[in-house]
Amino acid sequence: MSEQNPLIVFTPSGKRGRFAVGTPVLQAARSLGVDIDSVCGGRAICGRCQINIGEGEFAKHGISSSAEHVNGTTQVEQRYDRIKGLPQGRRLSCQTQILGDLVVDVPPESQVHKQVVRKEADTRVIALDPATHLYYIEVEEPDMHKPSSDLERVYNALKAQWGIENLSTNLTVLNQLQKTLRKGEWKITCAVYSRAPGGGNKLAAIWPGFHDKLYGLAIDVGSTTVAAHLTNLSGGEVAASAGLMNPQIRFGEDLMSRVSYVMMNEGGEKELTSAICGALQQLAESVAAQAGIELTDILEVVLVGNPVMHHLFLGIDPTELGGAPFALADGMALTFEAKEMGLKLNPGAWAYVLPCIAGHVGADAAGVALSEAPHESKDIMLCVDVGTNAEIILGSKQRLLACSSPTGPAFEGAQISCGQRAAPGAIERIRINPETLEPRYRVVGCALWSDEPGFEEAVAQTGVTGICGSGIIEAIAEMYLAGIINQDGLMDGSFAARTPRIEAYKRTFNYVIRQPKDESNQPLIRITQNDVRAIQMAKAALYAGVRILMDKLGVNEPAKIRLAGAFGSHIDMKYAMILGLIPDCDLGHVQSAGNAAGTGARIALLNKAARDEVENVVHRIEKIETAIEPTFQQHFVEAMAIPHKTADFRNLKRVVTLPPVKVISAQDDEGGGRRRRRG
Amino acid sequence: MSEQNPLIVFTPSGKRGRFAVGTPVLQAARSLGVDIDSVCGGRAICGRCQINIGEGEFAKHGISSSAEHVNGTTQVEQRYDRIKGLPQGRRLSCQTQILGDLVVDVPPESQVHKQVVRKEADTRVIALDPATHLYYIEVEEPDMHKPSSDLERVYNALKAQWGIENLSTNLTVLNQLQKTLRKGEWKITCAVYSRAPGGGNKLAAIWPGFHDKLYGLAIDVGSTTVAAHLTNLSGGEVAASAGLMNPQIRFGEDLMSRVSYVMMNEGGEKELTSAICGALQQLAESVAAQAGIELTDILEVVLVGNPVMHHLFLGIDPTELGGAPFALADGMALTFEAKEMGLKLNPGAWAYVLPCIAGHVGADAAGVALSEAPHESKDIMLCVDVGTNAEIILGSKQRLLACSSPTGPAFEGAQISCGQRAAPGAIERIRINPETLEPRYRVVGCALWSDEPGFEEAVAQTGVTGICGSGIIEAIAEMYLAGIINQDGLMDGSFAARTPRIEAYKRTFNYVIRQPKDESNQPLIRITQNDVRAIQMAKAALYAGVRILMDKLGVNEPAKIRLAGAFGSHIDMKYAMILGLIPDCDLGHVQSAGNAAGTGARIALLNKAARDEVENVVHRIEKIETAIEPTFQQHFVEAMAIPHKTADFRNLKRVVTLPPVKVISAQDDEGGGRRRRRG
Repeated sequence: MSEQNPLIVFTPSGKRGRFAVGTPVLQAARSLGVDIDSVCGGRAICGRCQINIGEGEFAKHGISSSAEHVNGTTQVEQRYDRIKGLPQGRRLSCQTQILGDLVVDVPPESQVHKQVVRKEADTRVIALDPATHLYYIEVEEPDMHKPSSDLERVYNALKAQWGIENLSTNLTVLNQLQKTLRKGEWKITCAVYSRAPGGGNKLAAIWPGFHDKLYGLAIDVGSTTVAAHLTNLSGGEVAASAGLMNPQIRFGEDLMSRVSYVMMNEGGEKELTSAICGALQQLAESVAAQAGIELTDILEVVLVGNPVMHHLFLGIDPTELGGAPFALADGMALTFEAKEMGLKLNPGAWAYVLPCIAGHVGADAAGVALSEAPHESKDIMLCVDVGTNAEIILGSKQRLLACSSPTGPAFEGAQISCGQRAAPGAIERIRINPETLEPRYRVVGCALWSDEPGFEEAVAQTGVTGICGSGIIEAIAEMYLAGIINQDGLMDGSFAARTPRIEAYKRTFNYVIRQPKDESNQPLIRITQNDVRAIQMAKAALYAGVRILMDKLGVNEPAKIRLAGAFGSHIDMKYAMILGLIPDCDLGHVQSAGNAAGTGARIALLNKAARDEVENVVHRIEKIETAIEPTFQQHFVEAMAIPHKTADFRNLKRVVTLPPVKVISAQDDEGGGRRRRRG
Repeated sequence: MSEQNPLIVFTPSGKRGRFAVGTPVLQAARSLGVDIDSVCGGRAICGRCQINIGEGEFAKHGISSSAEHVNGTTQVEQRYDRIKGLPQGRRLSCQTQILGDLVVDVPPESQVHKQVVRKEADTRVIALDPATHLYYIEVEEPDMHKPSSDLERVYNALKAQWGIENLSTNLTVLNQLQKTLRKGEWKITCAVYSRAPGGGNKLAAIWPGFHDKLYGLAIDVGSTTVAAHLTNLSGGEVAASAGLMNPQIRFGEDLMSRVSYVMMNEGGEKELTSAICGALQQLAESVAAQAGIELTDILEVVLVGNPVMHHLFLGIDPTELGGAPFALADGMALTFEAKEMGLKLNPGAWAYVLPCIAGHVGADAAGVALSEAPHESKDIMLCVDVGTNAEIILGSKQRLLACSSPTGPAFEGAQISCGQRAAPGAIERIRINPETLEPRYRVVGCALWSDEPGFEEAVAQTGVTGICGSGIIEAIAEMYLAGIINQDGLMDGSFAARTPRIEAYKRTFNYVIRQPKDESNQPLIRITQNDVRAIQMAKAALYAGVRILMDKLGVNEPAKIRLAGAFGSHIDMKYAMILGLIPDCDLGHVQSAGNAAGTGARIALLNKAARDEVENVVHRIEKIETAIEPTFQQHFVEAMAIPHKTADFRNLKRVVTLPPVKVISAQDDEGGGRRRRRG
């Protein structure tokens, strides 16, 4: 370009170049590789390419820029402004012609690769770059003098107008093609999927004229609940969310009872698959309705789940996961057309399933890894997703290990005498006065503590019905801090003399939290010795898994801990550390990761490179099978104590005063094993 | 390799090399790139790698070879011989170790790329190289110490044992994987498809243990009949064939009436698609049963058909093909999973549809091109597939043109007063004595001529019910040779004086071929003036199309003519030339190509490179739309004459004496047009 041509500088990229007078700004941006969005290809239809023209002297860039250095707004631009509205000062870059030197700012919402997932208190940034894109094209009309098929001319237009080659399509698009082209008067919008197995681009869907609705579903299939986030693949934001109880629960509350159902019932896996796929369809319909879009606007679905859920939503019999050697049918990431799962979204929609890490460490853990990015961490990071199995990842960018540990369902309130799910009426917080041994507590759905005025009235409707996972953790930790249980988890019967809340029960004791008022029909809520034992076993299993990974890595204390999942979101990290669920760590660096598996699914949905990333990370992770680790049993036994015998917890000591720790060696445990444990 | 190592020479390839003593012959062959088959990978299971060891001095190769230069038959080889039988002198090359110099002959049946389609009287040779192959693999068992999924280990085995990479699979394989591996005790056979859109290899199907049944279907979807050939993709031979009437006939006898049905009935294309796809499934089941194989042994299907059939079996509304500009939805070749068409073969089976050439020149014509290979011909070749439309290809390796011409259904016996399909009872051959004007004829299903003793008894069962396409051509040509009609196609009423077979009818005359005996209830069979006119119009349309291509190419006489399709198979080329259906050509170079479209489908099924070939050829062909060619009308009018005014027919004159030709100029034809024509 001639030195006489106007100079144009784009911000924030700083890319610059000279262009002939009259060049559209969008074209200049494209030739410089500036990240600027457009679906309609410069036809003032989509409004994605908005810019701000700098005014004044820009010393940094050495030029003076002004709105007078561009043409006035064009008719099509005015029409766009009338119909859809342009913010003050904004221009459509496709309509703006360069007349003189310019500084052009591309605001974040006009960037194709805008940042869309930024977790609070974290620096992980995800750029929007989904596997499916929309392209508006103008297609040549058929001409008897130059016979060619409609599809051929669509492919030619995609190549000429958008540079897209190596295309193939599905029969649905073929069947709709001729009517769509004629209805759109030879202008159509194409959805192109670029990450099909083997390679190439898939013309996944078409709409007559301009269409700018493009959505994807990120779904976390949990054993208990299934959660779906409908995400706008053009803007990156979550448009709607919905959750459902996993309908497989009617075949078995926990994973292993569902596997047993399959083993004992011919065709059982088909029933379970059909149940979960029906729920996925229901969720899709629910979020589409919430967001006011058509199911056909959904072009992608990304799924995560633990290995058993993973197999079942894919229609794979999970029997092999029920016993050693716990072989997955497939652990690699999968890409296939969503209709193969029976999902009725757009018929051309594609599904992506994150890879599983190992037989008990699933695609949900891979989602956690993608979300929490231990593989990018300089320091040792521990990620734990607590469910019926705890899925554990430990390491840093140097080396990553993963394992699972059979915590059982105690942390979810199951196998606990007064346990229940975290639903209104469940005790979720509890404090015990170490002097009086009186408890105060809060229940889900009520902001008041039990000793605050109006509490009973506030909970009258739901009642106080049980204790959920986080409540049990706090109750047992507080009982320990108050001295009601010792480090072996045994209740001190002598306390019965101090308070009627310690009651004798068979040959052990209970701690009564709530005595129902008169005839209120509400249950007696207490913690039994067996409840304490169940939590001890669960936390010992969790800790033993973590410990094995720490041993392999030669570390004693992770620099950061992330607790993922519903349980991780609700518990107070301090109590988790008091109980010894997690190893010692600066409490400021222990955080809930929320539904990290679901976040991972959403990241994979929004950014196709993140799929390569998670596949590489999972490939790199060293899989440890705790069932064959010779030290697991010993770690388990040692971790039964509260906090536990090898604990140091210098970090925890900064925030709470712990009772003195009595050291028990594994040798003390005659007969050993998981189920029997002597103090 | 050391000079001291034995020298081994393979025939017929002539490839040679030195190998260490003890090297298996199969391994030596592979390292030299010798074409030798194996499914089991050298485990003496498949028996595909059979060889003959040369005995004696081979002066040409400079070595002496002997069965003593290899090890004796091994136990596994003896076991193979006992169970499946080895021909005398044959060895399994995987079991045969090199001990000294050898000449090893690889018989044709042991070659992977064996020649399988060799058309009679032609040199076109097709090597067997289908898109789907079987591979027997031994898969590592799962190991808790090294967790990996079953699919990962299958992919690893395919890579290590067969060098196959970039694999993906379908959910059906995933669902069957674990049971199949365990049933086969970690030995399975995999079908891998290598021609999916975009690239990569598809693990299409799996079987426990060794499985050597691999079949494909080549299907020609005609407007009237649908024919399927079940082809062994391992051996190349046709295992079974079946044909069916196209069930779409109930929606309309000819193509355009089916298009009208779709235009006038909402969802009509779905009815037509479901009818044809049902027939395809029925054919698949019929040929599988004939060959004694399972439907799941069918891994591929290749389809051809005219544009309307093509659209309808793909579920595409053919309305656009019913009027100008005759735009195809898709003309490019298509590859998709057969289940998308609703075909129940192996769930992992792939479909391939040959490309269409233009709006009226379909995938059937592409099949003809692949079968007859005009693009490889040094001399100008004319290929004509006669149906309701004639699809015409003309040219050579230099340049190829194609068009269609609206012949209408007269050649198939429709629109002819006594016309019928070529079924038992139909007159298919006829001779007229030029002196007596008496006819003699033969009917389909009876070898006797009508003037031979026993004819009436032989046809008593079926009766003589009408005239089929080839019979009409012969009748009219013979009427012309006998002088009953003149070159304008007009019957000479003066002949009525000579024979009662010329009978007056309204203002024209009929020629009576067969007067039913007394009360036999059989029809009177005659040729009316309108019948003559219908054939004149059909042949004029056909010739005009050919003429336009010849004009464009600047040729007057093709060197070779191939008539494809049922009509082309039945007519006598001499009569076709007398009537002027086809241009002058040395009669010895005019041949029926049989069901060339179906042969083309079979070639594409057997050799994946043939798919690239036909796609390239179709891309190269210049498409001529006769409807907009200004000279079409003139050619049509001129071609109404018998033979026709521009005919020279020096070739034909060698075999028959033609009546003198009266030259009519187009200018004589006042009012012109297709429908009105004055003598």
